[in-house]
Amino acid sequence: MTKRIQILVIGHNDNGCTPEHEKIAYETGSEIAKSGAVLISGGLGGVMRASCHGARDAGGLTVGIIPQDDPTFANEFCDIVIPSGMGLTRDFLNALSADGIIVIGGGSGTLSEMAAAYMHKKPMVVIKNTGGVSQQYVDKYLDHRNNVKILGADNPKDAVKLILSKITS
Amino acid sequence: MTKRIQILVIGHNDNGCTPEHEKIAYETGSEIAKSGAVLISGGLGGVMRASCHGARDAGGLTVGIIPQDDPTFANEFCDIVIPSGMGLTRDFLNALSADGIIVIGGGSGTLSEMAAAYMHKKPMVVIKNTGGVSQQYVDKYLDHRNNVKILGADNPKDAVKLILSKITS
Amino acid sequence: MTKRIQILVIGHNDNGCTPEHEKIAYETGSEIAKSGAVLISGGLGGVMRASCHGARDAGGLTVGIIPQDDPTFANEFCDIVIPSGMGLTRDFLNALSADGIIVIGGGSGTLSEMAAAYMHKKPMVVIKNTGGVSQQYVDKYLDHRNNVKILGADNPKDAVKLILSKITS
Amino acid sequence: MTKRIQILVIGHNDNGCTPEHEKIAYETGSEIAKSGAVLISGGLGGVMRASCHGARDAGGLTVGIIPQDDPTFANEFCDIVIPSGMGLTRDFLNALSADGIIVIGGGSGTLSEMAAAYMHKKPMVVIKNTGGVSQQYVDKYLDHRNNVKILGADNPKDAVKLILSKITS
Repeated sequence: MTKRIQILVIGHNDNGCTPEHEKIAYETGSEIAKSGAVLISGGLGGVMRASCHGARDAGGLTVGIIPQDDPTFANEFCDIVIPSGMGLTRDFLNALSADGIIVIGGGSGTLSEMAAAYMHKKPMVVIKNTGGVSQQYVDKYLDHRNNVKILGADNPKDAVKLILSKITS
Repeated sequence: MTKRIQILVIGHNDNGCTPEHEKIAYETGSEIAKSGAVLISGGLGGVMRASCHGARDAGGLTVGIIPQDDPTFANEFCDIVIPSGMGLTRDFLNALSADGIIVIGGGSGTLSEMAAAYMHKKPMVVIKNTGGVSQQYVDKYLDHRNNVKILGADNPKDAVKLILSKITS
Repeated sequence: MTKRIQILVIGHNDNGCTPEHEKIAYETGSEIAKSGAVLISGGLGGVMRASCHGARDAGGLTVGIIPQDDPTFANEFCDIVIPSGMGLTRDFLNALSADGIIVIGGGSGTLSEMAAAYMHKKPMVVIKNTGGVSQQYVDKYLDHRNNVKILGADNPKDAVKLILSKITS
Repeated sequence: MTKRIQILVIGHNDNGCTPEHEKIAYETGSEIAKSGAVLISGGLGGVMRASCHGARDAGGLTVGIIPQDDPTFANEFCDIVIPSGMGLTRDFLNALSADGIIVIGGGSGTLSEMAAAYMHKKPMVVIKNTGGVSQQYVDKYLDHRNNVKILGADNPKDAVKLILSKITS
């Protein structure tokens, strides 16, 4: 296997995403691209769109795995689209496609992706002070199994650095 | 559509399920069967197995939706088995197959099912004092969307009564 | 495992289903119910609906696994509905949920279910002279692997008898 | 949407793939890469591996959508791996991810992908004289709906040219 490193970015979609979240997501996408990793996302709006935007502006490669069976639903910054046709069940595909995950705020969709990622023992880094469902899990485990501790980072640059250290270690 | 009412029971699997959880799950399955509803579960061990056991002993009908592609992995109290072949992604199938959900303790798998159910606006009742990931959500919403408030019940009988009132209302 | 025998009926949906197909599907559902087996189907129209109708009239139990995430799309003869939310990808769930399969005519959806069933080595019986994509495979294999020979039967009664003999052998 | 053109190559896996199939698949991957399109495949052996090999040698980008939930099962020529964790049900993901499809021989898995692609009205080109399940469909429709006529091409170069003309028209 000689595949590239794949980093999933998850968090607030259009519903709940503030300009501040978008800025953080854009920078996260940019840092991922600069590292040479591929950005995976859910391919729609909010944090997904902003992170793809940032990655593309930095010359990176972006993959969007969307609920619909039609690629035209993907945001305009996806280079490759996987139109899963599985509805929100695609949250598990996102998690499975990640070598590591960065979380920015988020609602129940983000929570399902974190749970899926945790069950598959994927490293996760939450960007601190971005609100939503993810904050309560910084430095904690999702359940009693202690599969993977969810880490925190102060900003996009640190988050990418940290997740890369967990992926390659 | 003249389908029967379908109630999903989720919670601790073999890892984390105590005799007390099993007793509660057994009674929950029993109450579901007595109400005439069909019990849906993830078809494996712990709370899944005990609730199927209770439902069958009370003359009910049980459906197990399992991760594997081979029905022999299902517990011995499933009347019908859906061997999804989708791994843990089947958590979404469980949630989608429910008219309402009863939660008994639970780990990260339970959390992914609750998140999936919440996104699809399914009524949920957590049995109180059963620990795990679900307790913190009693009388709360999973996120800022306020889709469906997660309710609490003191015991299996009340839980089934409450979920039925939410399904048929 | 003490689950019941599960027989999947596939074939023409609303598009392509003639009154003759419906009559055959109704009788097939009826024979399945009389045998004590559970009828699994795709839960929608055409052969799916008619077979559910026949099974229910004969006192049987019917399960519909549908593409939509909303159970109200199922036909009115389904006792249990699995609203997969996966679109036509649910064809694989149908095949996986079968101990054996009876085929009545059919188009490309039926072909995908036959291919899925063949890969998972499920016994299949085609009712002869029902047209569609399935006729060409009577007494043949789907590919060079010779996984399972697809059998033919002259009528619903013989088809159910034959598939049961393959399931329990 | 500004995604790249995505061409799926399907056909014999390790079981059934001859050196001649591999040569054709390699050239097909190479032609896809030269056209600037992304190669999508099932990410495993046989035609999948050889087409990825050809695409990578020509400087192209390759995506493998595999049945397993672990990316290490992908062949060594995949740049991006989607470890679906869905078993062979991933055949539908392959079809949905394609703007157009090129078929080289193939068994029952290829047939399920063709059926899935046909239902979603994706253009398909079969490379002639490559045997397997696909040859019988050249210049034909999979069923009575006449969704999309399956085309034939004499060689990889013509196949890529033809599928591109169908995608962009």
